[in-house]
Amino acid sequence: MTELYSRISKDNAAVILVDHQTGLISGLVRDYGVDEFKNNVLALANTAKFFNLPVILSTSFENGPNGPLMQELVDLFPNAPKISRPGQINAWDNEDFVKAIEATGKKQLIIAGVVTDVCVAFPALSALKAGYEAFVVTDASGTFSQQVANAALMRMAHAGAQLMNWFSVASELQRDWRNDSEGFGALLASQLPGYQNVIGSYMGAQSDLGEQNN
Amino acid sequence: MTELYSRISKDNAAVILVDHQTGLISGLVRDYGVDEFKNNVLALANTAKFFNLPVILSTSFENGPNGPLMQELVDLFPNAPKISRPGQINAWDNEDFVKAIEATGKKQLIIAGVVTDVCVAFPALSALKAGYEAFVVTDASGTFSQQVANAALMRMAHAGAQLMNWFSVASELQRDWRNDSEGFGALLASQLPGYQNVIGSYMGAQSDLGEQNN
Amino acid sequence: MTELYSRISKDNAAVILVDHQTGLISGLVRDYGVDEFKNNVLALANTAKFFNLPVILSTSFENGPNGPLMQELVDLFPNAPKISRPGQINAWDNEDFVKAIEATGKKQLIIAGVVTDVCVAFPALSALKAGYEAFVVTDASGTFSQQVANAALMRMAHAGAQLMNWFSVASELQRDWRNDSEGFGALLASQLPGYQNVIGSYMGAQSDLGEQNN
Amino acid sequence: MTELYSRISKDNAAVILVDHQTGLISGLVRDYGVDEFKNNVLALANTAKFFNLPVILSTSFENGPNGPLMQELVDLFPNAPKISRPGQINAWDNEDFVKAIEATGKKQLIIAGVVTDVCVAFPALSALKAGYEAFVVTDASGTFSQQVANAALMRMAHAGAQLMNWFSVASELQRDWRNDSEGFGALLASQLPGYQNVIGSYMGAQSDLGEQNN
Amino acid sequence: MTELYSRISKDNAAVILVDHQTGLISGLVRDYGVDEFKNNVLALANTAKFFNLPVILSTSFENGPNGPLMQELVDLFPNAPKISRPGQINAWDNEDFVKAIEATGKKQLIIAGVVTDVCVAFPALSALKAGYEAFVVTDASGTFSQQVANAALMRMAHAGAQLMNWFSVASELQRDWRNDSEGFGALLASQLPGYQNVIGSYMGAQSDLGEQNN
Amino acid sequence: MTELYSRISKDNAAVILVDHQTGLISGLVRDYGVDEFKNNVLALANTAKFFNLPVILSTSFENGPNGPLMQELVDLFPNAPKISRPGQINAWDNEDFVKAIEATGKKQLIIAGVVTDVCVAFPALSALKAGYEAFVVTDASGTFSQQVANAALMRMAHAGAQLMNWFSVASELQRDWRNDSEGFGALLASQLPGYQNVIGSYMGAQSDLGEQNN
Amino acid sequence: MTELYSRISKDNAAVILVDHQTGLISGLVRDYGVDEFKNNVLALANTAKFFNLPVILSTSFENGPNGPLMQELVDLFPNAPKISRPGQINAWDNEDFVKAIEATGKKQLIIAGVVTDVCVAFPALSALKAGYEAFVVTDASGTFSQQVANAALMRMAHAGAQLMNWFSVASELQRDWRNDSEGFGALLASQLPGYQNVIGSYMGAQSDLGEQNN
Amino acid sequence: MTELYSRISKDNAAVILVDHQTGLISGLVRDYGVDEFKNNVLALANTAKFFNLPVILSTSFENGPNGPLMQELVDLFPNAPKISRPGQINAWDNEDFVKAIEATGKKQLIIAGVVTDVCVAFPALSALKAGYEAFVVTDASGTFSQQVANAALMRMAHAGAQLMNWFSVASELQRDWRNDSEGFGALLASQLPGYQNVIGSYMGAQSDLGEQNN
Repeated sequence: MTELYSRISKDNAAVILVDHQTGLISGLVRDYGVDEFKNNVLALANTAKFFNLPVILSTSFENGPNGPLMQELVDLFPNAPKISRPGQINAWDNEDFVKAIEATGKKQLIIAGVVTDVCVAFPALSALKAGYEAFVVTDASGTFSQQVANAALMRMAHAGAQLMNWFSVASELQRDWRNDSEGFGALLASQLPGYQNVIGSYMGAQSDLGEQNN
Repeated sequence: MTELYSRISKDNAAVILVDHQTGLISGLVRDYGVDEFKNNVLALANTAKFFNLPVILSTSFENGPNGPLMQELVDLFPNAPKISRPGQINAWDNEDFVKAIEATGKKQLIIAGVVTDVCVAFPALSALKAGYEAFVVTDASGTFSQQVANAALMRMAHAGAQLMNWFSVASELQRDWRNDSEGFGALLASQLPGYQNVIGSYMGAQSDLGEQNN
Repeated sequence: MTELYSRISKDNAAVILVDHQTGLISGLVRDYGVDEFKNNVLALANTAKFFNLPVILSTSFENGPNGPLMQELVDLFPNAPKISRPGQINAWDNEDFVKAIEATGKKQLIIAGVVTDVCVAFPALSALKAGYEAFVVTDASGTFSQQVANAALMRMAHAGAQLMNWFSVASELQRDWRNDSEGFGALLASQLPGYQNVIGSYMGAQSDLGEQNN
Repeated sequence: MTELYSRISKDNAAVILVDHQTGLISGLVRDYGVDEFKNNVLALANTAKFFNLPVILSTSFENGPNGPLMQELVDLFPNAPKISRPGQINAWDNEDFVKAIEATGKKQLIIAGVVTDVCVAFPALSALKAGYEAFVVTDASGTFSQQVANAALMRMAHAGAQLMNWFSVASELQRDWRNDSEGFGALLASQLPGYQNVIGSYMGAQSDLGEQNN
Repeated sequence: MTELYSRISKDNAAVILVDHQTGLISGLVRDYGVDEFKNNVLALANTAKFFNLPVILSTSFENGPNGPLMQELVDLFPNAPKISRPGQINAWDNEDFVKAIEATGKKQLIIAGVVTDVCVAFPALSALKAGYEAFVVTDASGTFSQQVANAALMRMAHAGAQLMNWFSVASELQRDWRNDSEGFGALLASQLPGYQNVIGSYMGAQSDLGEQNN
Repeated sequence: MTELYSRISKDNAAVILVDHQTGLISGLVRDYGVDEFKNNVLALANTAKFFNLPVILSTSFENGPNGPLMQELVDLFPNAPKISRPGQINAWDNEDFVKAIEATGKKQLIIAGVVTDVCVAFPALSALKAGYEAFVVTDASGTFSQQVANAALMRMAHAGAQLMNWFSVASELQRDWRNDSEGFGALLASQLPGYQNVIGSYMGAQSDLGEQNN
Repeated sequence: MTELYSRISKDNAAVILVDHQTGLISGLVRDYGVDEFKNNVLALANTAKFFNLPVILSTSFENGPNGPLMQELVDLFPNAPKISRPGQINAWDNEDFVKAIEATGKKQLIIAGVVTDVCVAFPALSALKAGYEAFVVTDASGTFSQQVANAALMRMAHAGAQLMNWFSVASELQRDWRNDSEGFGALLASQLPGYQNVIGSYMGAQSDLGEQNN
Repeated sequence: MTELYSRISKDNAAVILVDHQTGLISGLVRDYGVDEFKNNVLALANTAKFFNLPVILSTSFENGPNGPLMQELVDLFPNAPKISRPGQINAWDNEDFVKAIEATGKKQLIIAGVVTDVCVAFPALSALKAGYEAFVVTDASGTFSQQVANAALMRMAHAGAQLMNWFSVASELQRDWRNDSEGFGALLASQLPGYQNVIGSYMGAQSDLGEQNN
């Protein structure tokens, strides 16, 4: 069982993205709106990029109906290991996948994927069993319905997984805005339309006052 | 308490379907839409059939308002033991039911039924107490409302049940697509309209290119 | 503007199915669950078949991402005219489509499609303008969200379209169970799981009494 | 088209209850919760009884899966004409049904039934066409989903039906509490648990003060 | 029938608040959250006050379970005519009520109340019939469920009522911010927590810059 | 911590109903519909009555705005101890309340009340701490919102409470239909409209066949 | 009243975007998710750009809490007239706004804005009254709640506005894919993540077959 | 791990309010309605004030887009320590924050903030790790969606946090109405519109009887 509060550390974390493939997202994901889900996945991916975390991609039968990986992920991580599993459903059953994780030397695994109850739950539970810490990014993982998602999240929580969302992952990695205030602000602005709006208003307000002062 | 991540194995699992009777479904199930619920139940049943798992059916007062078992289940499993309980509400209180389970020699019980809070929860909790592993198939189990379902699922999760859905059961049993790629694909296509669509698109796309190449 | 209550007649109605293609359903339809939507579309199609109504199929760019027509529709209506539109978005802009409708000699058009706000609304509005009656089958038509669907339905209702669902279409065509009680009952049983359940219970109850009587 | 605001009058109104049968409610109604729907139907029925309005009951194939009329309705209106339609889906197509309405001499028809899109919409539209006023009691009518209900209600509203609910029907019939303040209050208390609570609190408060005063 | 777009004018409008009584709100209103509903009603009331519109209050059996008028309304409008109806359900049936309206000399009636389908719908329809314009404030009116509310709003819209919300009423009365920019801003800030937040942020931003400039 | 699966026994259980008062239900309960909530509470009460379980009622400030106990509970349990707490919010802080429980000699407490997060959660947690088993009847307990209910249920589940609903309580107490098949059936029929419908259909079907046989 | 089906034409349409300001969106819009709303607004904007329609921007008090226009709109339309209204709430009350519309020479106005019930409804109703056609883009317009939105849309529909969504606007303007198949496809792919996925799958499928063929 | 049921005590509790800033609430909180959320936060704040609990405020970058603290909190607690964190995201990483907590000498921390998954979860988990008890006030904490909130609450519950809501916090602190019945009643009346209504009705009922008695 993991610690009471295990904090994700930039030095000890890797990001695992499992089966964010066009066919699976299109055909199966119904617990998030299409706009929201795409933005959440890219937000997690850009978070990984911003913190230079090792990223491991995996796909299942991408030469088939499951479809290719989201093109944005391919473009963001051209050098990341991409484990195209020839058949294993639980990515952890694929030796190359586990080796790729071991090669990172990290023990904190930040995991998201499609669908939550299989492609996320199975490797997350395997990782916990293998002694890793598993941080499940719930809002960058999608599945058939909110009811299915809830059952899968409860199952993982009872097995010791830490349930998070992309924003809490980013915040924990950042720890302190001063580590790179501008960069982190830009990350949030580009991924959170709600935050982009308040930034826009803030800059507008300052510009207004600037005009008044002249 | 069960293991951290106990994997369902084809060699050690049996499927228990409790009280999927026409009257109970019609009168009581309101946490899933009628189309979705029927498809989920048949998907679990066809999964059991595909993997040749032993199946045990049980009914409560089928000669009465609770109604007969869904005809599709009767047709799919003509040789499965069907325990018509003369009165016991918790199927585990029926000796024949427990004997039928023991006769399978399996220790992993995949359980679904109507209604979740009684016909599923009671035997699942009894099975856990008797030393079995209980895998509750949440989306092939129905009840009065989502609020009732949530409370029952929380109760079972805290007692050590593994919350799953039919698709994660099928995926864990299959382990690797290569064990029978075509058969498993056909199973999914016939039970998941969303997946059927992406398969249809894939085949259409290949056919398009085929035409172009000629 | 149509009459106050124009009744669909078997002798004067044709069914128009626009763009029920795998890619469009998979990628765009989010106002109905996947199981429910598939069942609704097939229910309308089987209704058309049961009443021997002329059916006109149309697709948009089926050799492309929009994907092929749902295979079940192809199988149900092998001889129906299928207008593969080379580019027109409003099917009514396609001369062959209008000719196919004219060829039926019918003036009551029962229309469903994907997506509701375009592939249904545009030809329905055009049909109304051309003097036809338009019966929009709301639950066999899908789109991006319930909000988009509501706006499109309000628009069509204000223009004189009759908003229906597949069950009310079937019921109006049947008029009287005695026209073919068994056939109509079988149609409903196969398309309405909720009705199938009450039929199952009824037959079970009669069989129970039969047993008691012997 | 009806008047801008046609008021239901005790002297000119009849209540039409179409197909509130056990099988239909159980198998088909999903746009209201089971408790709420039963209470709404009985509230409308007791309203009819309270105001001594003529009531006409109709059933469709009650000797079959559709099941018998809700027993409470049978008990409340033992002398009401009950038109058991041998096959007509639109009750208006049944001569006895229309004659029973004509026999009341009323021109304002208060209509509810199962399902909304067929058993309510068809006779309501026919009644409008025949020159009657149609007051559709939306919350004592049920169907497959809220989406189906909305489409049917929009259709009827555009054809001139007045959309009401049982409480607005009762209130319009009552006109003035002084016509029978106690009786009307008792009707509301017995049918509206929320109102029952405020009455209970009021009586409790007066009793408290009574005690204080002594 | 009202004009295509009849604009509410400060000089021609009166506000009618019907039966916002503690017992009715507590026992019957379920289509809005309690916080939201209270805020909406007070927002409309403060809007009336801000624009010095004549206000007419009415209650039904306030010496009884329906309870007294919301105290805030009593406090805001100590001099408004309050028509305590001795029994009439439709306030328009009360002569004093109609006289009070006539005494204002206004022809545009802004109406809200509890419950929407009776206490709002009946006088709004009567007002339309009597030649007034009726502006129904949908979000300051409450009832049993969203389904009941929708049916009542559709009914009123088809009869010619203008469906509005308190914010659109306030905005139409204000016409131009420059008529009293501070006062109107203060009204919105005090009634719209969402707007209060953006004002807070704006003032904070200006204060920040002010500090920077010193 | 309670056992894995502690079964409620007729011989060892008492029912505790806390603060089901008219004012509290009317003013505070919003996580269930008014019809559904009343029916659930009465269903639990009638279950207690049917099994002759000792019942303990408690109220908080019933001579005040909280209002009197629901009259139906008073009528059902005229001889049950009713602890009118003079001020203690957690009923367990009231000595008479604890003594009344001790006087039953039962160790399994079936608890429901208004509001879930206080009047249920506090005594349930106290009972667990005092060594009792706590069975929380989630659907006969109400509170401000589903979000508040969920948090309270999670809190209790983590502290060892068994989350149930009235139907699972009744079913566990009954154990076997044969203990009193008619009585139990009548209990369910009177409290579950959905079950009442399927019973009605069953009896109708048998009556049909009976007619055919004659 | 507009025609039965007035088709938007590239040659006769202008796009009016009213008050899509950061403060208003952030503080007031709650009927769409933040991701979905931003994407919808930009989709409409990019549609306008793609078809080279004249665009008119307007803001209300942008030097204040309402905040500046969304930066993306500023960037997309650097040369569009931007009417900064000094106080008028209904943009149509601003002479420059009306002149800007007149200067386009277009009679079909495609209108979206924040909030729907004021900034969209008021100018849309004014435009209708002035003889223009008003096409309201419902999903690129936001407001306080779905209830407020529904009331505002019903009001506009009854006054003759055409309710549309950005996708139906784009589709009607395009008329025929062959007018610019690639460009239109790219527009949809970039604005509809669901469509982007099916395109990704299609290209993946063709690439698979390409590999097989070599 | 905390005790089974740790009761909050006035003598041992402090209230921690983290980042209730105008920009964060406006831009990010979407799991509660704006009216409900504001009222919940102020209810918790007034509860703290009523019981004279030490309050610690903290903000993150308040001189920036996150905006100033809600003005009401500033006004309520002019003398509370306000820790303006220069960059730490987890308030517990800020030494002054921890010192302020230590200075209170309290070991029970009642925590709320924006957003739940970061500003609440991080310090709550840190507090648990440091040996404090953490009582998370779920309804005075807001975040991006109910799905994100649920995951964060499950995470905290599994780590030993007590999930509460402002009303259960107030009730536990009060323990017994007699400690200050009037004060506590006034607190509830001012923060719970639903309770305010039943109080209003109660006072009205007594006044009615008073009048009758004279």
